[in-house]
Amino acid sequence: MPTLSRDFLSDLDSRDELAPFRDEFHLPQDLIYLDGNSLGAMPLVAKQRILEVVAQEWGEALITSWNKNGWFQMAEKLGDKIARLIGADPGEVMACDATGINLYKLLSMALDMRRDRRVIVMEGSNFPTDNYMAQGLIKQLGRGHRIYFAEKEDILAAITEDVAVVSLTEVHYKTGHLLDMKAITEKAHAVGALVIWDLCHSAGALPVFVNDCHVDFALGCGYKYLNGGPGAPAFIFVAKRHQGRAVQPLTGWWGHAAPFAFEPDYRPADNIRQTLTGTQPILSLAALECGLDIMCRADMAKIREKSMNLCDYFIALVEEHCGGYGFSLVTTRSREERGSQVSFRHKQGFAIMQALIADKVMGDFRAPDIVRFGFTPLYTRYVDVWDAVMRLKNIMENNLWQKPEFNRLTAVT
Amino acid sequence: MPTLSRDFLSDLDSRDELAPFRDEFHLPQDLIYLDGNSLGAMPLVAKQRILEVVAQEWGEALITSWNKNGWFQMAEKLGDKIARLIGADPGEVMACDATGINLYKLLSMALDMRRDRRVIVMEGSNFPTDNYMAQGLIKQLGRGHRIYFAEKEDILAAITEDVAVVSLTEVHYKTGHLLDMKAITEKAHAVGALVIWDLCHSAGALPVFVNDCHVDFALGCGYKYLNGGPGAPAFIFVAKRHQGRAVQPLTGWWGHAAPFAFEPDYRPADNIRQTLTGTQPILSLAALECGLDIMCRADMAKIREKSMNLCDYFIALVEEHCGGYGFSLVTTRSREERGSQVSFRHKQGFAIMQALIADKVMGDFRAPDIVRFGFTPLYTRYVDVWDAVMRLKNIMENNLWQKPEFNRLTAVT
Repeated sequence: MPTLSRDFLSDLDSRDELAPFRDEFHLPQDLIYLDGNSLGAMPLVAKQRILEVVAQEWGEALITSWNKNGWFQMAEKLGDKIARLIGADPGEVMACDATGINLYKLLSMALDMRRDRRVIVMEGSNFPTDNYMAQGLIKQLGRGHRIYFAEKEDILAAITEDVAVVSLTEVHYKTGHLLDMKAITEKAHAVGALVIWDLCHSAGALPVFVNDCHVDFALGCGYKYLNGGPGAPAFIFVAKRHQGRAVQPLTGWWGHAAPFAFEPDYRPADNIRQTLTGTQPILSLAALECGLDIMCRADMAKIREKSMNLCDYFIALVEEHCGGYGFSLVTTRSREERGSQVSFRHKQGFAIMQALIADKVMGDFRAPDIVRFGFTPLYTRYVDVWDAVMRLKNIMENNLWQKPEFNRLTAVT
Repeated sequence: MPTLSRDFLSDLDSRDELAPFRDEFHLPQDLIYLDGNSLGAMPLVAKQRILEVVAQEWGEALITSWNKNGWFQMAEKLGDKIARLIGADPGEVMACDATGINLYKLLSMALDMRRDRRVIVMEGSNFPTDNYMAQGLIKQLGRGHRIYFAEKEDILAAITEDVAVVSLTEVHYKTGHLLDMKAITEKAHAVGALVIWDLCHSAGALPVFVNDCHVDFALGCGYKYLNGGPGAPAFIFVAKRHQGRAVQPLTGWWGHAAPFAFEPDYRPADNIRQTLTGTQPILSLAALECGLDIMCRADMAKIREKSMNLCDYFIALVEEHCGGYGFSLVTTRSREERGSQVSFRHKQGFAIMQALIADKVMGDFRAPDIVRFGFTPLYTRYVDVWDAVMRLKNIMENNLWQKPEFNRLTAVT
């Protein structure tokens, strides 16, 4: 670890090949935004592009845009761009619907492909919606499936011959821990199980190699590291070898082999289009494409290297400058074993995060006591790490977090 | 029927209380747009509103917009606006996801509420995606459900005591025929079945009274008569009496009783929020709200009256001026029994529609031989009906549809 100073970090910025990407995003004045893992920043081009889609493609060209402006092809075109970011091939990814819905499709397919098995392995501490989706599906099916909730140390051991599908999130939303996609997928296949990888905190944050790891299915989010805008459509990956061999159950016309033939019976497309259900939200897809086009120009290896540095330096600086104030590191120190975020535990985490936000450092708080900081190498500078920690230090030194306005627990719902 | 002339129709426009709404939409120069039942026209305010959501709410306010700009509440807020248009109460409608997915949720709930029954009644000639969704669900469930496809004359007779759910589209996408929501719902309830009404071609086109008709469930589309933009989120209605009594199976965190408590197990909200799965596409919702805000200011009775007149006059003028050219009316002449569209059958329908579009009258063609014209009273004038028919007459009189460029069958997929 080098000796960290603002000058040292500033020098890194001046030599950072990713630095020019920052100019392609809108970032609020003076804000240090460490929450791009919740909602990515806005690509500047999005304003003009969305206006074009609204005024020209919708307003002026109306329904002719379905063909003329490629609306019908958007889910697939954006899917192919996402494929490049996750190590998939063209024709294996669609940009569509929402993460939970895509997980539901894949879980249902996987259970159908392993009809003699009844167990789903998931991580109990995962962001709950994945687990909720699985609970809803098995209740609906009523065939005696059960979910075995393992934590990361126990996952490999939990993958036994009664397991139908292992459904995990690669990067843990709270701790930032990175699971070993290759080893877990190998183990699953060794016992005849299938895998589904949730890449919500991976896509755009670090290199992902779904095909090198022989992943069966995957899904992920468009609005975090892909900078696709609030509630951007999600994505869904089905390995070519499984396409045409299982049917996702939300069998709308867009997934039909001949959607415009209006045949009386559903006949599944034998390719990635079967993952679609119906009409997609075009305005939101157009915004997502703006984020993807930037990300596809960036070198993912460089993103990963900078991300690991940003996280390392943040941890080191917090421990050096705020070490006496009761923070304990949640995220692993092993840079290879984490995603692009750092979490600390602190009893006063809620108030501290409120004070940080008031001082223009935006991370987020995860109950009961975790402060979480996401690092997005395309628009986060090395000096931002320094400045964020100095503002945190000031808050801790001067007990600013004790102000009453930072201790009002406002319900988010 | 009055004697129709352009002057007569122009005079109606000058006295039309809905006429000022036309100024709130962008309509391409000289185009007579009779396809608002496929994609509604763009409300002018949408440009500014979307730019504000992109640049301010996303770009500048970032994640704080979930609370500060009400993103979390949008699905429900827009749902309440849609409720007013379909005769539902506040808290009974959500704007979310897509029509097929919402139908899937409701079908699954309905089958779960009638576990001892195995039959779904649908209309075989309906827009196929509804039927496909039901086919996918029953295949996935594997419990021996079957779909009985009835056509409109046979629907009431098909509703017998083995029927779990009657799932119908109120206005037929091709013929424009309006089913009797009240009578069918009554019959279904009399035999202990539930009803799901697809309001894709009803909402915003005519008054709908889901609660007066004691409808159980409904869904519909945001991008047709509601003018919500391409692929706008759909809506879902669950009558208050059923809320908390059945669980839709796409059980994501937004449908949890306490979404931010991050409880390990799914616990369904006991209200309309349970219909949600996860994060919604905010940009697309914002555009939808622009359309809804206009529609909510319009008098639905006046919309209906004008819609019936536009359709009546269109039929009369086509028959008067193009009567010798082989058109046969598909839509009923009975204004009370149709939605807001008129279809004719013609052997050369495809080429005729291409010629019309080239002459700036945009309707659409439905294979094998139907030309379909939608009438959207908020921005369609009485004189548009005259002008459209005169252009059609010109095409038929001069055999303009025979030009080779109008006879190239280009695949839409």
